[in-house]
Amino acid sequence: MTAPSPPSSTSSTFKPVLDRIAAGIASTPGRGRPADYIPALASVDPRRFGMAVAELDGTVYGVGEWRQPFSAQSITKAFTLALVLSREGEELWEHVGREPSGNPFNSLVQLEYENGIPRNPFINAGALVVTDRLQSLTGDTVGTLREFLRAESGNPDLTFDESVAASESAHGDRNAALAHFMASYGNISNPVPVLLDQYFRQCSIEASCADLALAAGFLARHGVRADGSNLLTRSQAKQVNAVMLTCGTYDAAGDFAYRVGLPGKSGVGGGIIAVVPGRCTLCVWSPGLDERGNSVAGVAALDRFTTLTGLSVF
Amino acid sequence: MTAPSPPSSTSSTFKPVLDRIAAGIASTPGRGRPADYIPALASVDPRRFGMAVAELDGTVYGVGEWRQPFSAQSITKAFTLALVLSREGEELWEHVGREPSGNPFNSLVQLEYENGIPRNPFINAGALVVTDRLQSLTGDTVGTLREFLRAESGNPDLTFDESVAASESAHGDRNAALAHFMASYGNISNPVPVLLDQYFRQCSIEASCADLALAAGFLARHGVRADGSNLLTRSQAKQVNAVMLTCGTYDAAGDFAYRVGLPGKSGVGGGIIAVVPGRCTLCVWSPGLDERGNSVAGVAALDRFTTLTGLSVF
Amino acid sequence: MTAPSPPSSTSSTFKPVLDRIAAGIASTPGRGRPADYIPALASVDPRRFGMAVAELDGTVYGVGEWRQPFSAQSITKAFTLALVLSREGEELWEHVGREPSGNPFNSLVQLEYENGIPRNPFINAGALVVTDRLQSLTGDTVGTLREFLRAESGNPDLTFDESVAASESAHGDRNAALAHFMASYGNISNPVPVLLDQYFRQCSIEASCADLALAAGFLARHGVRADGSNLLTRSQAKQVNAVMLTCGTYDAAGDFAYRVGLPGKSGVGGGIIAVVPGRCTLCVWSPGLDERGNSVAGVAALDRFTTLTGLSVF
Amino acid sequence: MTAPSPPSSTSSTFKPVLDRIAAGIASTPGRGRPADYIPALASVDPRRFGMAVAELDGTVYGVGEWRQPFSAQSITKAFTLALVLSREGEELWEHVGREPSGNPFNSLVQLEYENGIPRNPFINAGALVVTDRLQSLTGDTVGTLREFLRAESGNPDLTFDESVAASESAHGDRNAALAHFMASYGNISNPVPVLLDQYFRQCSIEASCADLALAAGFLARHGVRADGSNLLTRSQAKQVNAVMLTCGTYDAAGDFAYRVGLPGKSGVGGGIIAVVPGRCTLCVWSPGLDERGNSVAGVAALDRFTTLTGLSVF
Repeated sequence: MTAPSPPSSTSSTFKPVLDRIAAGIASTPGRGRPADYIPALASVDPRRFGMAVAELDGTVYGVGEWRQPFSAQSITKAFTLALVLSREGEELWEHVGREPSGNPFNSLVQLEYENGIPRNPFINAGALVVTDRLQSLTGDTVGTLREFLRAESGNPDLTFDESVAASESAHGDRNAALAHFMASYGNISNPVPVLLDQYFRQCSIEASCADLALAAGFLARHGVRADGSNLLTRSQAKQVNAVMLTCGTYDAAGDFAYRVGLPGKSGVGGGIIAVVPGRCTLCVWSPGLDERGNSVAGVAALDRFTTLTGLSVF
Repeated sequence: MTAPSPPSSTSSTFKPVLDRIAAGIASTPGRGRPADYIPALASVDPRRFGMAVAELDGTVYGVGEWRQPFSAQSITKAFTLALVLSREGEELWEHVGREPSGNPFNSLVQLEYENGIPRNPFINAGALVVTDRLQSLTGDTVGTLREFLRAESGNPDLTFDESVAASESAHGDRNAALAHFMASYGNISNPVPVLLDQYFRQCSIEASCADLALAAGFLARHGVRADGSNLLTRSQAKQVNAVMLTCGTYDAAGDFAYRVGLPGKSGVGGGIIAVVPGRCTLCVWSPGLDERGNSVAGVAALDRFTTLTGLSVF
Repeated sequence: MTAPSPPSSTSSTFKPVLDRIAAGIASTPGRGRPADYIPALASVDPRRFGMAVAELDGTVYGVGEWRQPFSAQSITKAFTLALVLSREGEELWEHVGREPSGNPFNSLVQLEYENGIPRNPFINAGALVVTDRLQSLTGDTVGTLREFLRAESGNPDLTFDESVAASESAHGDRNAALAHFMASYGNISNPVPVLLDQYFRQCSIEASCADLALAAGFLARHGVRADGSNLLTRSQAKQVNAVMLTCGTYDAAGDFAYRVGLPGKSGVGGGIIAVVPGRCTLCVWSPGLDERGNSVAGVAALDRFTTLTGLSVF
Repeated sequence: MTAPSPPSSTSSTFKPVLDRIAAGIASTPGRGRPADYIPALASVDPRRFGMAVAELDGTVYGVGEWRQPFSAQSITKAFTLALVLSREGEELWEHVGREPSGNPFNSLVQLEYENGIPRNPFINAGALVVTDRLQSLTGDTVGTLREFLRAESGNPDLTFDESVAASESAHGDRNAALAHFMASYGNISNPVPVLLDQYFRQCSIEASCADLALAAGFLARHGVRADGSNLLTRSQAKQVNAVMLTCGTYDAAGDFAYRVGLPGKSGVGGGIIAVVPGRCTLCVWSPGLDERGNSVAGVAALDRFTTLTGLSVF
């Protein structure tokens, strides 16, 4: 619905809800396993937990480790998508689709049947295309993204973890395969090593729940940035939310829509951002993942949030 | 958003919008081709057009041929899904998934990789499973569905077109293959010929835009039927809307979410229903289809509706 | 090689070799499991074993249970292929391919990507097409096949096991799916129930190693039947052998060619026929199967035969 | 058949046959198009033609441009396979399968479903694995192959075309994708850039029909090299021939076996080698390819050869 309640919130409308959620999570046994493909992620305690809500006016509050930086990983893909859309608009869709993939997030199968055009911007192949576009548009994907996130979150220290990026690169054969494969179809403009370097560094950003909830605020404000300027048109903001809802949580997007009912984007670091259009943004973090790569406690917390508040897009 | 504006509508809030949409459609050249796999559908003029809006209180109004019955086809799948969920709840999901398919609507490939469990209730295989469940629960899928639609639409004459059902059956080898294939995995309970008979008759329902917009009203009223009783819980109504948004328009669900931003369900007869939760339901009809099986003018009209009104879930 | 040694064999050239093979098999532990999808096959002792060699002149001898009838199953597909080729020649190849499938023998995936044209005559879908052709050509697939096998084997009692056919039919949803699926592409001429009835009865033939080694003799005699008449041209006989070598043992054809190096056709009843062009034919039977559906002891015996005799096509 | 006729040939048994074949080819219109993915291949006249036969004793003769060097391309894969088998034997098969692929030669799909183990040594992925193994075993794939080919052909000038290798490398994104993809499964031992360099140079060998027919002689001599030493055991030679028959001509192996009936290996340079075990080897060259990557006139010439001589393995 586009006619939101006025932001009548004083500072912490949902704080009691967050407290109830955190209490419930704390008493839940078994919460998945952290990503194990790189040491930097594998070593994190899977039971850590934090959650933040950012109101439209920039008020932010949270529970648990909501100010603890973690590896944003694929959450950054929502931001790079918006940054490319804001610069080249519809042209992006000649290089990447916007349909759910129905396959694991790094599948090559679909890419081959569809001639090198990735199914959507949030599977790895699609995110590589988005990064390739942003690199061509700006010459500095990593710097552009960092400045945007710093500005929106108000956190000037927000940055990348070069050791995580190096570790990703050392285990990056699958992404190298995807990039070369799309290059063979002419769908990559930058040299593959340049693209991969930008991509791995982009994924290695460290940010907290507070940072990411604030940074995603433009998606709840119909495209308006923290300083009141427009990043996206109202229509484009709706479109990014639509892509998040249908494609944002790997091959569990249908289940996420069914349970949570909000546009969201997850990362294998254990974070998930979610948007209540016209109302607020959320970010939750807990490193234990389910078999489809989404945070177990994170999805549960968002599910509980929508149940307790009655907020969902449906 | 779950806090809807009060139904302050007098009788026809959106009537001027519908008039503008109809005028725009009328001046648009080229609007796809009707389904050609059975004569009853192939012979319809692809440029016919009607559109209706039903408010929460049952007020309904429209434009064009909004009272003309047409072949509902796959639109009925939204209703049978709701009827099964209301009877057996979560158990349904052991027999069918709720993820977008990413493949054409009658694909056998995914079904094979996933051991006879269809990806979602709206691809043909999934709809066969839903019909099979409803048949087991009621012994009379067709009658159950007809009575429900008559009650919700207030149209006691609403019924099935046996000649369309017979024609579907004569061209039904693909659906027979799907049913036998799932039966080989033990995922079909009724004899395949019984199931197919119920399925083809279910699809052959004839209803108008007015009928279908009214009948879908419970999805905008969070599960409440026209007579005030509950068909679904609030949570279940949200879930059906989520499945419609992520899976309701064949393999164009991502594009439909992107352009229209509403839960919707289309049929190859050229109809589409759409839901603005807490606000209203819509039904549009125009028989010319795009290559993915959705009404060209229908999608365009809904796209225009959300643009003009600012209504969308995002 | 086409210049065979003259059939200098007295009655039993390879008898000592067969004895050595049987002794080796007898001392081998663990020989797979019988097919378990129908009771009639599941109940057979997997360690039973028989093997026969038929010389070009009709001399036949064997070892173990070489005169014990067993369920021929897919071995019959080599004979129906030859019977169709002899009647309509190259036209068959418009309805079925002759490439290895690279997928399990009842896969629907490839069939879908290739628009209802099965990859080769020996996967189930392809065998259904061959049976459909033979049914159209003769009006009585089962009778035609039975008379041919009786004439070539000299066994007037050779017949079908109706209880096995009934059991296959009761578990026949997968084949029904394949048949309907191909019918949806227009690649089946007979009504699906008629086709399935002929197909299941064809597979239920009971014959011994002696019977089948003799019946396959025309493939070693470059197309000449037991009575000296021609079933196939020399070129067609070569073609059937080629299809057997590349496609005759489900998705293990490459491994079979690598180990055995002879054209062969296996069945889930545990039988395998093999051809030494210009020299002799073999049939081996042992009901224990490997995970790809081929007789464990049967492949081992043929492997040993080619090693001991130096006979192979390579 | 393993009991060959004695090499009674004087110097040129099949010369009249070759002359008839060449005359037939010369009068045939339309013979495919040369490979167009690199300029060095695209610029060759597709109607050029040469054919050579090498007897077991090293006698070689031919017709047309049978002494003209051309780009061997994938034909080299038969030689590297033999070189690896001769060094590490069965261990190779833990890294690559030996089943026909049923898919285009550079498909990633199968590779993904089979966890990075290529289907056979002759699809590109499999050939990369074979090269990787040979590189680990010798430290110099290119040098090892060149010395082998020089020794067997008796041509000390036989070498690689560095400009073709460089051109392959410049268009090598697809192979880079395959190599990185397998590396992600741990199935590549050497650094990807080293592997690709060796691979592209290996494919760029320039040799004539005479050179390649002679070099393949060990496959007709059951593993014996030109100097009488053993490269392969009799069993291993049979195995290489089996893999050539089932997998040697991209996804047309079934058709090649059906028409020609000999083990063969083709390359996109337009060459094909073929083996008559115990009798002779052949090499034909004509740059015009069919849609599956095999020389149109080459396959036709081999088809005609087996028809005229009655030689085939079946």
